[in-house]
Amino acid sequence: MAAMNGIKRIGYLGPEGTFSQQAALEYGKDENSLYVQYPNIPELIYAVASGDIDEAVVPAENALEGTVNVTMDMLVHDVNLKIVGEMVLPISHCLMARPGLTIEEIREVLSHPQALAQCRQFLNHELKGIPCRAVSSTAAAAKMAANPSCYYGAIGSIGAASLYGLEVLKEKIEDNNGNSTRFIVLSRQEKEMNVTGNDKTSIAFTVDHRPGSLYHALKIFADNNINLTKIESRPMKTLLGQYLFLVDFEGHYKEDKIRGILEKLSTNSKYYKFLGSYPKFCNEVKQETVGR
Amino acid sequence: MAAMNGIKRIGYLGPEGTFSQQAALEYGKDENSLYVQYPNIPELIYAVASGDIDEAVVPAENALEGTVNVTMDMLVHDVNLKIVGEMVLPISHCLMARPGLTIEEIREVLSHPQALAQCRQFLNHELKGIPCRAVSSTAAAAKMAANPSCYYGAIGSIGAASLYGLEVLKEKIEDNNGNSTRFIVLSRQEKEMNVTGNDKTSIAFTVDHRPGSLYHALKIFADNNINLTKIESRPMKTLLGQYLFLVDFEGHYKEDKIRGILEKLSTNSKYYKFLGSYPKFCNEVKQETVGR
Repeated sequence: MAAMNGIKRIGYLGPEGTFSQQAALEYGKDENSLYVQYPNIPELIYAVASGDIDEAVVPAENALEGTVNVTMDMLVHDVNLKIVGEMVLPISHCLMARPGLTIEEIREVLSHPQALAQCRQFLNHELKGIPCRAVSSTAAAAKMAANPSCYYGAIGSIGAASLYGLEVLKEKIEDNNGNSTRFIVLSRQEKEMNVTGNDKTSIAFTVDHRPGSLYHALKIFADNNINLTKIESRPMKTLLGQYLFLVDFEGHYKEDKIRGILEKLSTNSKYYKFLGSYPKFCNEVKQETVGR
Repeated sequence: MAAMNGIKRIGYLGPEGTFSQQAALEYGKDENSLYVQYPNIPELIYAVASGDIDEAVVPAENALEGTVNVTMDMLVHDVNLKIVGEMVLPISHCLMARPGLTIEEIREVLSHPQALAQCRQFLNHELKGIPCRAVSSTAAAAKMAANPSCYYGAIGSIGAASLYGLEVLKEKIEDNNGNSTRFIVLSRQEKEMNVTGNDKTSIAFTVDHRPGSLYHALKIFADNNINLTKIESRPMKTLLGQYLFLVDFEGHYKEDKIRGILEKLSTNSKYYKFLGSYPKFCNEVKQETVGR
């Protein structure tokens, strides 16, 4: 059973050497934590829902590639978990291969699809025509590239290169400096969820299919002087052209003003889901507002 | 050289048997068209930009999985092409394998990452624990699964199964009925771009990092009674938390009212890009507005 003897079981996207593991180690470092790895995001999220682990550290958004759709879609449609924390990690990718293999000898490039997308320009210019294969994580790619009979290049962290005995052929191959990934921490319970004074709240809602309804939903935030830190539309998974909105904003659901906004939004929306209030990550890359 | 002798060269995402090919054949059927296949979306889009082909039919959005990020990001950041048309295809996926292979014998499932995502629930329930491999297209997956010594299942169209001599093990495995994909047609020229009376316009813009700026941008549409058919945020690819908005709405840039809106938006936005005005697809799955 989870959370016995004061030990907190924290899940992450494995194998060893992923950015997700880095985020989990950082998140759990001040508590008595036991780390459990899962091979993909759905199994990781379902493991919290079923009680196999207490919390999961899951990638939610990357600065270059955007929302990690599977994470946010599962949170909205498939499980009833709450976001209880967030972490932002700077992300820099390397091209790596088994010792001795040169960049010209690479026959296939392996990585997580998000990492491949984050290095798209590098791949198009420096490895033009070399096929890319999407695998389950950057660390899984590094592990596969360590096979001495292969001609794989892998894209992942410098830590994964050293963990799997690979040589770094090129560093910082992402399309842009300032790359970072936001991880969220998922839990079954809203646990403390206490106001820290520097909090964020995440919700999902649909707007009616009446003219002006998104504009009117945003007006509720504007009238209350609330900064949106993120707005994202995702398909409702019904018909093309039907969307739900994922919104992050400053404030905590226990504050009166925020409670008022949430009540108004939930009353005005056919579909509304509260996803959590949690402390804003402090060493965060400077986030600017998208308007309110 | 392209467009010689009245022949229009239309590119699509190959190999044979992709949904993209279906969309291209439908789009080009009334003209003297020559079809050219490309192995991935970046090569397809760069082929129009360089003049190797006249137009490309490119997937832009799926009802279940949302925006095809690479398409929209390239259109915004990497090339200067215009959207000159759109097509909506109903999408239904099958699980297929070489004749004789049963569902229990499958050791790995191959498909395009979007198709894997669209069948996520089926994969989690009926093929739990079987690894999935993302490949460049649904048809490429079918082609690989035809290898008589393999134990692959492939996810793709019923047409791809028959094209590559595979057996359909299960039909309609997508997570939801009503699945469809919107393809856009890209061209170097704005060509006719004439008002048909039933048009759509696509733009990309950022809002200032001042409170209320997205709300005020949407107000321009609301005040002019213009329906948004889509609003999507994508990362600016600079820092986490900086977004640009992709908006589709009803109307044509040659109409006075729309021209006024575009002028106002481009004046008020640090970044603004006009992506095209084009006839709305007619047999379209019913699209409802997201508000204006």
